[in-house]
Amino acid sequence: MKRAVVLLSGGLDSATTLAICRREGFEPHALSFDYGQRHKLEVEAAKRVAASLGAREHRIALIDLRVFGGSALTAGIAVPKNRETGNASGIPITYVPARNTIFLSYALAWCEVLGAADIFIGANAIDYSGYPDCRPEFIAAFERLAGLATKTGVEGTRFEIHAPLIAMSKPEIIRKGVELGVDFSLTHSCYDPSADGVACGECDSCRLRLEGFRAAGLKDPIRYANR
Amino acid sequence: MKRAVVLLSGGLDSATTLAICRREGFEPHALSFDYGQRHKLEVEAAKRVAASLGAREHRIALIDLRVFGGSALTAGIAVPKNRETGNASGIPITYVPARNTIFLSYALAWCEVLGAADIFIGANAIDYSGYPDCRPEFIAAFERLAGLATKTGVEGTRFEIHAPLIAMSKPEIIRKGVELGVDFSLTHSCYDPSADGVACGECDSCRLRLEGFRAAGLKDPIRYANR
Repeated sequence: MKRAVVLLSGGLDSATTLAICRREGFEPHALSFDYGQRHKLEVEAAKRVAASLGAREHRIALIDLRVFGGSALTAGIAVPKNRETGNASGIPITYVPARNTIFLSYALAWCEVLGAADIFIGANAIDYSGYPDCRPEFIAAFERLAGLATKTGVEGTRFEIHAPLIAMSKPEIIRKGVELGVDFSLTHSCYDPSADGVACGECDSCRLRLEGFRAAGLKDPIRYANR
Repeated sequence: MKRAVVLLSGGLDSATTLAICRREGFEPHALSFDYGQRHKLEVEAAKRVAASLGAREHRIALIDLRVFGGSALTAGIAVPKNRETGNASGIPITYVPARNTIFLSYALAWCEVLGAADIFIGANAIDYSGYPDCRPEFIAAFERLAGLATKTGVEGTRFEIHAPLIAMSKPEIIRKGVELGVDFSLTHSCYDPSADGVACGECDSCRLRLEGFRAAGLKDPIRYANR
């Protein structure tokens, strides 16, 4: 069974990506980050999702992205609420500088240690929040870099960055997840949850999620404040 | 004055790179990593070097590369001693998986927050230890990725990864450093120093350094064990 590293945030997209990775016959090694994010609860969600979907192992890398700040997710900046979402509205303040580049670099390091060539990432260029590091051209450039950056690459490994959700809409992702047995009640998406973990229902991430479930004709199983 | 991020390990190469960055008219923002390396003393050396060469500021990112291991520098693997060095001898066990990719990703994140477009790295493809992520083709691939990965890249910033030492020999780097006023007594290169910080003189890094000073006709100002 071929090993793969799966980036697992604990949200809806990465949970579905993990399920796809398994379905494609890989042995998933899940990787999450405790990066000083304000919505740290997602790390707990990632643990539940990894266990529930049969990841071979799950590691949590402790890295500090607060050292630079520059994002509502890592610095003392308020998370925007009830904003119009979608590609047209520009790159929002919840963008974390170079985050997916950093996450993929770690996945690449783990690949080398595991002898793996495949990385799965739940990046999505449709119904997304406008992040540059969720686009297909970014994924392709990283794949090219990976072969040049590494010992195993020099020795002949051809790395593949799988972004199976990249062209899917949110309702399509939700339906795919349901089809593959993902338990969405275990996932966490909110950027600004209450202390006891209840989603706000108003940040970009909550709005995209709620809209996705609505469009898919399904009920989101998690709890929201003010709803 | 244009800002630049300089990767500063505290060794001879990165100190010279910082001096070159300043000489080229940039305002240097130095970045070091506490990544669980066994030769953690280099972080202290980086602080001395940053202060001595007039970095505008110096940040130390706490990241844990021990989460994967896979290297003599981050796992419980012995550092090889008195090995033949040079390109011909293959990639050694002191290679840290994807390390420069991870370091450059962080530098890129800081660039975005600073509004900078320039990153300096002391990578060196001559007289090096055989690391894939010190080659010009790796640097070029990362430069390309940077523009696609970031908000500022999408908005038009053209990132440049400066690797001024890439084609220089160790004695050339040492002479350049001396010319620019680098105090090499502040630097630390050894992979396996004693508890009180004395260099072993026998690991690849010490051997390349000692050989470099010898070839440059200069005396290395730091102390070595057994010498």
